[in-house]
Amino acid sequence: MKVGIVGANGYGGAELLRLLHHHPYIEIENVVSHSTKGTSLTKQYPHFTKINNMKLEDLYQIEINEEIDLLFFSTPSGVTKEMIPYFLEKGKICIDLSGDYRLKDGQLYEKWYKKSPAPSYYLQKAVYGLCEVNRKQLQLPEVKLIANPGCYPTATLLGLIPALKEKLIDPDSIIIDAKSGVSGAGRSPSLGNLFAEINENMKAYKLGEHQHIPEIEQVLEEVYGEGVNISFTTHLIPMTRGIMCTMYANLTKEITTEEMTNIYRLAYEDEHFIRIYSPGESPATKNVSGSNFCDIGLKVDKRTNRLIIVSVIDNLVKGAAGQAIQNMNLINGWDERTGLEIVPLFP
Amino acid sequence: MKVGIVGANGYGGAELLRLLHHHPYIEIENVVSHSTKGTSLTKQYPHFTKINNMKLEDLYQIEINEEIDLLFFSTPSGVTKEMIPYFLEKGKICIDLSGDYRLKDGQLYEKWYKKSPAPSYYLQKAVYGLCEVNRKQLQLPEVKLIANPGCYPTATLLGLIPALKEKLIDPDSIIIDAKSGVSGAGRSPSLGNLFAEINENMKAYKLGEHQHIPEIEQVLEEVYGEGVNISFTTHLIPMTRGIMCTMYANLTKEITTEEMTNIYRLAYEDEHFIRIYSPGESPATKNVSGSNFCDIGLKVDKRTNRLIIVSVIDNLVKGAAGQAIQNMNLINGWDERTGLEIVPLFP
Amino acid sequence: MKVGIVGANGYGGAELLRLLHHHPYIEIENVVSHSTKGTSLTKQYPHFTKINNMKLEDLYQIEINEEIDLLFFSTPSGVTKEMIPYFLEKGKICIDLSGDYRLKDGQLYEKWYKKSPAPSYYLQKAVYGLCEVNRKQLQLPEVKLIANPGCYPTATLLGLIPALKEKLIDPDSIIIDAKSGVSGAGRSPSLGNLFAEINENMKAYKLGEHQHIPEIEQVLEEVYGEGVNISFTTHLIPMTRGIMCTMYANLTKEITTEEMTNIYRLAYEDEHFIRIYSPGESPATKNVSGSNFCDIGLKVDKRTNRLIIVSVIDNLVKGAAGQAIQNMNLINGWDERTGLEIVPLFP
Amino acid sequence: MKVGIVGANGYGGAELLRLLHHHPYIEIENVVSHSTKGTSLTKQYPHFTKINNMKLEDLYQIEINEEIDLLFFSTPSGVTKEMIPYFLEKGKICIDLSGDYRLKDGQLYEKWYKKSPAPSYYLQKAVYGLCEVNRKQLQLPEVKLIANPGCYPTATLLGLIPALKEKLIDPDSIIIDAKSGVSGAGRSPSLGNLFAEINENMKAYKLGEHQHIPEIEQVLEEVYGEGVNISFTTHLIPMTRGIMCTMYANLTKEITTEEMTNIYRLAYEDEHFIRIYSPGESPATKNVSGSNFCDIGLKVDKRTNRLIIVSVIDNLVKGAAGQAIQNMNLINGWDERTGLEIVPLFP
Repeated sequence: MKVGIVGANGYGGAELLRLLHHHPYIEIENVVSHSTKGTSLTKQYPHFTKINNMKLEDLYQIEINEEIDLLFFSTPSGVTKEMIPYFLEKGKICIDLSGDYRLKDGQLYEKWYKKSPAPSYYLQKAVYGLCEVNRKQLQLPEVKLIANPGCYPTATLLGLIPALKEKLIDPDSIIIDAKSGVSGAGRSPSLGNLFAEINENMKAYKLGEHQHIPEIEQVLEEVYGEGVNISFTTHLIPMTRGIMCTMYANLTKEITTEEMTNIYRLAYEDEHFIRIYSPGESPATKNVSGSNFCDIGLKVDKRTNRLIIVSVIDNLVKGAAGQAIQNMNLINGWDERTGLEIVPLFP
Repeated sequence: MKVGIVGANGYGGAELLRLLHHHPYIEIENVVSHSTKGTSLTKQYPHFTKINNMKLEDLYQIEINEEIDLLFFSTPSGVTKEMIPYFLEKGKICIDLSGDYRLKDGQLYEKWYKKSPAPSYYLQKAVYGLCEVNRKQLQLPEVKLIANPGCYPTATLLGLIPALKEKLIDPDSIIIDAKSGVSGAGRSPSLGNLFAEINENMKAYKLGEHQHIPEIEQVLEEVYGEGVNISFTTHLIPMTRGIMCTMYANLTKEITTEEMTNIYRLAYEDEHFIRIYSPGESPATKNVSGSNFCDIGLKVDKRTNRLIIVSVIDNLVKGAAGQAIQNMNLINGWDERTGLEIVPLFP
Repeated sequence: MKVGIVGANGYGGAELLRLLHHHPYIEIENVVSHSTKGTSLTKQYPHFTKINNMKLEDLYQIEINEEIDLLFFSTPSGVTKEMIPYFLEKGKICIDLSGDYRLKDGQLYEKWYKKSPAPSYYLQKAVYGLCEVNRKQLQLPEVKLIANPGCYPTATLLGLIPALKEKLIDPDSIIIDAKSGVSGAGRSPSLGNLFAEINENMKAYKLGEHQHIPEIEQVLEEVYGEGVNISFTTHLIPMTRGIMCTMYANLTKEITTEEMTNIYRLAYEDEHFIRIYSPGESPATKNVSGSNFCDIGLKVDKRTNRLIIVSVIDNLVKGAAGQAIQNMNLINGWDERTGLEIVPLFP
Repeated sequence: MKVGIVGANGYGGAELLRLLHHHPYIEIENVVSHSTKGTSLTKQYPHFTKINNMKLEDLYQIEINEEIDLLFFSTPSGVTKEMIPYFLEKGKICIDLSGDYRLKDGQLYEKWYKKSPAPSYYLQKAVYGLCEVNRKQLQLPEVKLIANPGCYPTATLLGLIPALKEKLIDPDSIIIDAKSGVSGAGRSPSLGNLFAEINENMKAYKLGEHQHIPEIEQVLEEVYGEGVNISFTTHLIPMTRGIMCTMYANLTKEITTEEMTNIYRLAYEDEHFIRIYSPGESPATKNVSGSNFCDIGLKVDKRTNRLIIVSVIDNLVKGAAGQAIQNMNLINGWDERTGLEIVPLFP
């Protein structure tokens, strides 16, 4: 299978290139970067020296390359809403890592992203690529457009869904305190992601206003069957990779940490990429660094009758490029782990 | 006034020495360190070269020094419960930075600290040194023992009290997601605070089990007038200094972020060390680094009818040594800012 | 004395504001920032809240303020070559933190900075403000323009001069391996100073081509009396503050580490800001963090008959703002330590 | 082939386990850890969950396991001098990652390591496993004991040898300024490797006294044919992985950076793991993070007639576990890249 990558100069694009390098079933045909076209990949990323010496090209190269079967879009929001319909019509499979096709409701997109949405026809065609949750839908033969989940939603949803599905928690009590490394902010220079501003510092941002809120609620509502309203707050942490979501919700019945842990283990027993920690153990972002794992720890707080869920991922892998490849594997009928069996890098 | 410091080799002790160096009204007579007695301070902390060349001594030196008026104890929990009664009886003023005298209820101490408590007689004598909240009590002439607040409780309480006092939030809905730099774990080497384990990593710990929980609840209950049950979770962040507490609570009435901000500004209008951020601005730990400030940002989340409070301090200053000095100033009738007007170190 | 700061929005400018806040003899009249004029200082630097709420102004405000006696220029190279002659002619004292007046030879400036130099008349008027070395010259009453030394040259020269002056090392054998934190690169966003590019990374840059080379050689030649040719290499280290220069030179006679240490101690015995380490002890950048100290360690390597010198400073203090204030103190006849007796921030 | 790992609880051991996980020709039989025997690997390293659930065992398990063909020793110095002769006599191939078999001269070992050396008989049997340099010797069928090179020597030697072999540099002028991340200091807690002591700090250590000096000189002397005396200084950098050696030497003839670069490219043209940078480009440690690459940049400094060489590796991979596996591949006649074709993790 021949693939192309649009937005190869960003961290998400570079991570796709890292992970696809060892993928046995695909060949990378074109790598596109609007801002650095004409230069070589190794010029932008010297770590690819002797590994991948491709040239960063204009989008045009992908438009004329008839052989390409599948395209990854690792672009800022607002870009693929126009590109993807064009390529879908040419029969390409599209996996969109941006937020443009995640929300079914265009008006909601407009409200949270402050941009005009993709055409409704294509929004409805898109399938939300949270493999562990939407696998059946993703395996339908007509799926040609995958909206790859956001980094925060991935960690949040995988952590909440088993308890919510079993109605063990009150959906209106859910509070998500999310923390992220800085690579999630992308590779475009700005004051806010300078080393001297981030290092030895920690900052809350977009309190209750992050555009991932409607994405999370949309999925939780599907799972729960009715409206869900979450509190969601994001923090910037002085590290490069990693997301941790600490989640709180009121329990609807008495249950122990052990019982809850078993419910999660059962819910995910066939999921290779999800690791449920034993009671008393607590996830750390470095335990998943560079890998496609999502690690989840659980604690029932008897004093307050609340469930505490801690969920961690590598935002560039399970939160972006890794999950995109997992989706590619899934819709092609390949083993989902293909190219993704990476041992986390520790220390 | 002549002072002594017990536990001078830890980070809290070193911070006392840094801050007291410029204090105009005191003289440091003895610095005590059990583990490194006999060595010089500059051997343990070369950054004090040419600034403070005192010798780290045995506790005995303080016992025989009749001239000392006031003692700071920057020791692990379980140590001062025996020492402090001895020095109180000798007429010294004692400021305890450990947790031994914070909980009025000895049984509660035993439950959370897994150690036997200080004698009840002295527990009742201790005044909780959160200056902005307990000032009147701290100014009573008979106060000789101050329980300096914990780092997490300081950030938490200063952030919650104005809203709770005004009954604007439901006390049983309070959730505190606390994050701390590593200096709070002290200077004793252990696997958990090695650079290679902490760097580029983030970890939740003591989920719902931190010993600061009863301390926070004790104060909130006093403020609110009845029982308060909080969710409190702690995280280790790859930075040295700084604590951020992100707090969530259900609002009891409709209110805007602007109105809430004004209530906080009014509540703290005479407090030099508390800075309330304007709506839309968000605190960062580095903004208080090295200083005695507590910065607070507020956000009313209309969607969920919750209040989000973000409170940051430098754990070694306002969360330990700085507040201890503020207490010393207060009980001596000096300007509370004496020796503490430090511009934060940024970047 | 009334002072103004041009370039207040950069890290050097902010550090001047931090340090001058406690200076007893001066008053800050105007703070100028070309890029952020019209905004408040606390908008650019929230850590100044409640400390300094001045407005960032246009240069014009300083031009019309007759009361200003002294100006600090913390601007990029190429800016003050035009500004400073104007203000000198108006009778103001000028302390230039940029490189524009450091090199006496305009052609050399042009070669290394790739920019046209300041007028030769003013270049000759400027005095190089390395206080410990040029104190006598700086105290001459006619001095109105001070070229504040570069960060790397400060650490390098203070480390090399005692041995070179005594002709204990061969000047043509000097190799300087310099390492710096990222704050030295300034506050303008660029790919090279993003957190995700710097964190957990280390990079050599400008091998043998750094513009501080002629500045170092100019001073060494004055000290030694003839031409000196140095190897000078710079590295970017994943930290915010701090410079370390590790220097190597062939010894011209047999000498022990102890004897060399004594020579340095003698050379600097009256210098408050220089701390010579005992044999076997090794400087660390954090020991000087936030302070105006320069710490120096020495080692005679018997095996190779070379001297190894390790010199550390805080690049924003002794390497920029602190030294500028030391210069201001010096030319005004104040105690050089005024406003600069800061205990380093550790940890 | 069946292998065992002694010292699996250290960072080097964990890295062997990470890299060997994907190696197609081997099977890990036993993992030994003296300090944590009886626990599971995932208890010590949760990131191995679902990947490797082996139990950490006593050395005895390897002694009685007849099936093991090859042993990796990732132990502190002073341990294998007794263990390895025992296993050699039992016919096992031994790859020693400690320093015990690197120096041919036992007295030299005693002088620099302050410990008694391994038996001379076995010291002579050991082959120094710097594959790119000693490949022919390593391929001899009688080789059963490999002394895996130290981390600093690997980066240093690969950077120096091409120029020294061609007699383009004066061996007595070589100065090596080495910088390392903290993982090289191992996983045993000590004050010196605590996060709060290392973060935002940089320290020189063991000036001219590092035990890797005789190891480097031994190899350089073999290459050059006569005695070589180097200056070698080490620095601790606030990062986890990565070594950079910046090296300086006087040129023996006139040459350009381009010519020198070509000589290096030619010298290493068949070496997959060595990447020579183009003139003007400069290596960074993160470009090799997690990989077995050694990246080298060169600069001829015309002003001083010196060569500057910058060489970077990941200390845990090419500087330890990766090179050990490369050695295993080599002596077994497998493609040297087997299991080692890892794309560096960036950012």
